[in-house]
Amino acid sequence: MNPMHILVIGGVAAGASFAARARRLDETAKITLVERGNDVSFANCGLPYHIGGEIPVRDVLAVQTPASLKDLLNVDARTRCEALKIDRDNKRVLVRNLQTLHDEWLSYDKLMLAPGASPRMPSLPGSDDSRIHTLRNLADMDRIIAATGSGMNAVVAGAGFIGLEMAEQLQRKGLNVKIVQKGPYVLPQLDAKMAVPLEKTLALHGIGVYKNDEIVRFESGKTGLACHLASGRKLEADIVVMSIGIEPETGLARDAGLSLGKRGHILVNEFMQTSDPDIYAAGDAVETADRVFGEPVSVALGGPANRQGRVAADHLLLGEKARPYPGSLGTAIVRVFDLAAGVTGWTEKRLKAAGRPYGITTVNDFHHASYFPGAQLLTLAILWDPDSGALLGAEAVGTEGVDKRLDVLATAISAKMTVEDICHLELAYAPPFGSAKDIVNIAGFAACNERDSLVRTVSALPDDSGVQIIDVRGKAMADADPVPGARNIPLPALRNNLDKIDRNRPVVTVCALGKNSYFASRVLKQNGFDVSSLGGGLKTQIGKTGQ
Amino acid sequence: MNPMHILVIGGVAAGASFAARARRLDETAKITLVERGNDVSFANCGLPYHIGGEIPVRDVLAVQTPASLKDLLNVDARTRCEALKIDRDNKRVLVRNLQTLHDEWLSYDKLMLAPGASPRMPSLPGSDDSRIHTLRNLADMDRIIAATGSGMNAVVAGAGFIGLEMAEQLQRKGLNVKIVQKGPYVLPQLDAKMAVPLEKTLALHGIGVYKNDEIVRFESGKTGLACHLASGRKLEADIVVMSIGIEPETGLARDAGLSLGKRGHILVNEFMQTSDPDIYAAGDAVETADRVFGEPVSVALGGPANRQGRVAADHLLLGEKARPYPGSLGTAIVRVFDLAAGVTGWTEKRLKAAGRPYGITTVNDFHHASYFPGAQLLTLAILWDPDSGALLGAEAVGTEGVDKRLDVLATAISAKMTVEDICHLELAYAPPFGSAKDIVNIAGFAACNERDSLVRTVSALPDDSGVQIIDVRGKAMADADPVPGARNIPLPALRNNLDKIDRNRPVVTVCALGKNSYFASRVLKQNGFDVSSLGGGLKTQIGKTGQ
Repeated sequence: MNPMHILVIGGVAAGASFAARARRLDETAKITLVERGNDVSFANCGLPYHIGGEIPVRDVLAVQTPASLKDLLNVDARTRCEALKIDRDNKRVLVRNLQTLHDEWLSYDKLMLAPGASPRMPSLPGSDDSRIHTLRNLADMDRIIAATGSGMNAVVAGAGFIGLEMAEQLQRKGLNVKIVQKGPYVLPQLDAKMAVPLEKTLALHGIGVYKNDEIVRFESGKTGLACHLASGRKLEADIVVMSIGIEPETGLARDAGLSLGKRGHILVNEFMQTSDPDIYAAGDAVETADRVFGEPVSVALGGPANRQGRVAADHLLLGEKARPYPGSLGTAIVRVFDLAAGVTGWTEKRLKAAGRPYGITTVNDFHHASYFPGAQLLTLAILWDPDSGALLGAEAVGTEGVDKRLDVLATAISAKMTVEDICHLELAYAPPFGSAKDIVNIAGFAACNERDSLVRTVSALPDDSGVQIIDVRGKAMADADPVPGARNIPLPALRNNLDKIDRNRPVVTVCALGKNSYFASRVLKQNGFDVSSLGGGLKTQIGKTGQ
Repeated sequence: MNPMHILVIGGVAAGASFAARARRLDETAKITLVERGNDVSFANCGLPYHIGGEIPVRDVLAVQTPASLKDLLNVDARTRCEALKIDRDNKRVLVRNLQTLHDEWLSYDKLMLAPGASPRMPSLPGSDDSRIHTLRNLADMDRIIAATGSGMNAVVAGAGFIGLEMAEQLQRKGLNVKIVQKGPYVLPQLDAKMAVPLEKTLALHGIGVYKNDEIVRFESGKTGLACHLASGRKLEADIVVMSIGIEPETGLARDAGLSLGKRGHILVNEFMQTSDPDIYAAGDAVETADRVFGEPVSVALGGPANRQGRVAADHLLLGEKARPYPGSLGTAIVRVFDLAAGVTGWTEKRLKAAGRPYGITTVNDFHHASYFPGAQLLTLAILWDPDSGALLGAEAVGTEGVDKRLDVLATAISAKMTVEDICHLELAYAPPFGSAKDIVNIAGFAACNERDSLVRTVSALPDDSGVQIIDVRGKAMADADPVPGARNIPLPALRNNLDKIDRNRPVVTVCALGKNSYFASRVLKQNGFDVSSLGGGLKTQIGKTGQ
């Protein structure tokens, strides 16, 4: 019997992982990998950091080369080769060598499609200007590096994960950076509250953010490229980086008649097989199941891509021992100067848009023992099913420990844990690392208190002047940073001043972080008041004092 | 009806948490808290760090005072008061004011026992010397601070969590520190392999560690206190800190006829009720269920103590809404200079001692993307059930990211996840925070490979000269740091050199971190060799080269 021929289209995350795992499972298979770009298996998540110089040496980004894949994996990797067409009937792929322009049919027994996704580039007047860039691969990176220098003006369109990384790194390189963001806040993958500290940090670092706006046309001028915004503003740029989203590269799959999802991604089963069982697909171009509700979802992230490639190889070569891909959570994180922000699972706005019921609990606490030097506040929000208490998602922002809490909650969500369960997670505690009651436990406690009707939380200060706002912070803090319309009764004085609060009007208790206002609401509730507490405190209010 | 009288014995972690939660659930109860020491609710985990000056201000350790407990919680907290006797028939406790020596009966409707545990102090010749200290509370800390100064000699007996923190902090204060450790390695709560880097770091910081030894008598000499060791060695000390374990303070409970466990801890049910349903107990003095197997266990840690106090208050005052304490994992971590080391769940030696079957997988990888500046190696071992694959425990050591991986695995163990499940944890990845395949995923992959019979792992280099050791590292590394008895065939050259390996003798492949040796073993296995891979690589070998 001839050895199996495995053909892989796309050699970055999913494709390279698939090829490596396939070789480990089968020494005899003939494995050919075809990559349109110059490089295989490069560190695409590292690209922005070499632009800014934080990763000083370019070579570290080229994780593998065709030569090393040959040496280590006996894989025939061909770069600058583009797959043009799949002939499923004859199980072969037409491949063009982009250097020689020679076309060749490569046969396969099994095919892996890992074409990835390309940065979205809107067709706008003037958008063919060479100063307008996108960032997908090392060649894009090299062009951006060559085009940038200290003192230049950069405009970054789109404030998602990549846009924020690019803004940070271009500023690091000494450019004057402006961000244009179509939506009302940066990092639109998260809920609005999480963006407040990010926008502050961007401002502190001199990065202007133009929200609710977008570039509508480019115009080459004397002093650079003028970006005309929908608002009428004009931003002069020496370089523009477009990071407004991506499009899955599914032309090859579509032309071959493979089933695609509603938004154009390649449909796969839990073993990453497309509608043609001899063709697998993985990575940014596929649609998988959301891990929380099982809904169709496409998640363009390195972790899922790598593991999907592995699942496909296992299914092909391990047979019954192969385990299915459990779906994607969409766990993601970004560093923006001193801050980190991230998400796992569902956000509030996504739940709202889907019409799904949810509870949300926002807490603030220190990343390790508050009395240990260096303690930093972080904000954590958890989303949960009001019926079962099951966790649906989590978001966090802060300077330290954000990744850890997202990882714990990603694990908890994958395990179908409830808010009750996370109360009793026994996390590693010593003063340099955590707290006896970690913020994850605290979030669980707070959500349980809400579910047990011990507290009623509001997410914003009331507009209704009929509501009494009681600020339970200390007098000095309340004087220095007063809450409009609030009366200050510090928590320790509350029990002795109940007669100063009108029992016939609803009360909202507020404090800096949301803890003392909860304590106060317990005192008031047990004394017969109709009381709510401002969840997360003034710290996480949008557009109010206390920020 | 008179308000309920809740009496709390012990005012640090469990007792204070119980009192605070009880007040939040019941404004009307009379709550009295009796504490033998000078302080309530102090930060006991912070004590070593104030001794070393890392926590510069003492006040931050006194989290609450009797006055603040009165103000915030309307709790009557009485320090320097010792409970002498429980009269269960009449539901009252005899309490002595240690300042006035006045005795008083305090009645209770519900009683909470949170007496904690005291440092073990063996009765040795000379052990009444005032230079011999233990560390439990602020007064102990103050005495140690007063007794220590730069240039002095300190001996720390016991290299567990507290002993290592004390050694680090005394060194920080400028003392010459020696550690005497009864067992064969430091941090005996973990497995031996994890101690190797810790012992290196202690040595680098000039701390001598005397292993397999113990103090047998003290002798006051001209130049200090002589500590005579079982080995015959003599260590001169200006101060000795005993940190050789703790004893639960259960005299009061025993005298009252409450049921105790085999090792003398107070027995409680899942709602922290003792054998007398009107008496709760929580914290270091109680025995609860181990969270993995449900075995009786006593875990003296701040996190469990706080949450147990909360569970008891919920059971007393929330009724049916109260949720049981799910048991303890024993998650613990310690910082030793630049390193962190910790554990969650069961270790290999505990599983061995209990005669339980287990698999162990040890992996080394970087704490975040290897190409991102600052990437640090960490070592992670996971223990799992060979039948179901369920996680039983995890240990980690390294400079960065140890706490995060322990927390993820503590969560996974609590959720009864398997090694298969952790393959697909979708953890937060951006180059500054993690890797597309996190070391937790990698540990899952490696364990699954073992369970799927793709690899056979050995935990130590073979002693048998009949076994061929193939070192697959690069030639330069193999030449610089050769493995005794090994032949060097770098991985890329392996496929072309199969004829140089004897097919009739077993092979063990080795490399630095355990990854390339696995890759090599796959090549060899599929080519018909009887091959094993050295798990975790040379990095985690004890007493062998490669460290």
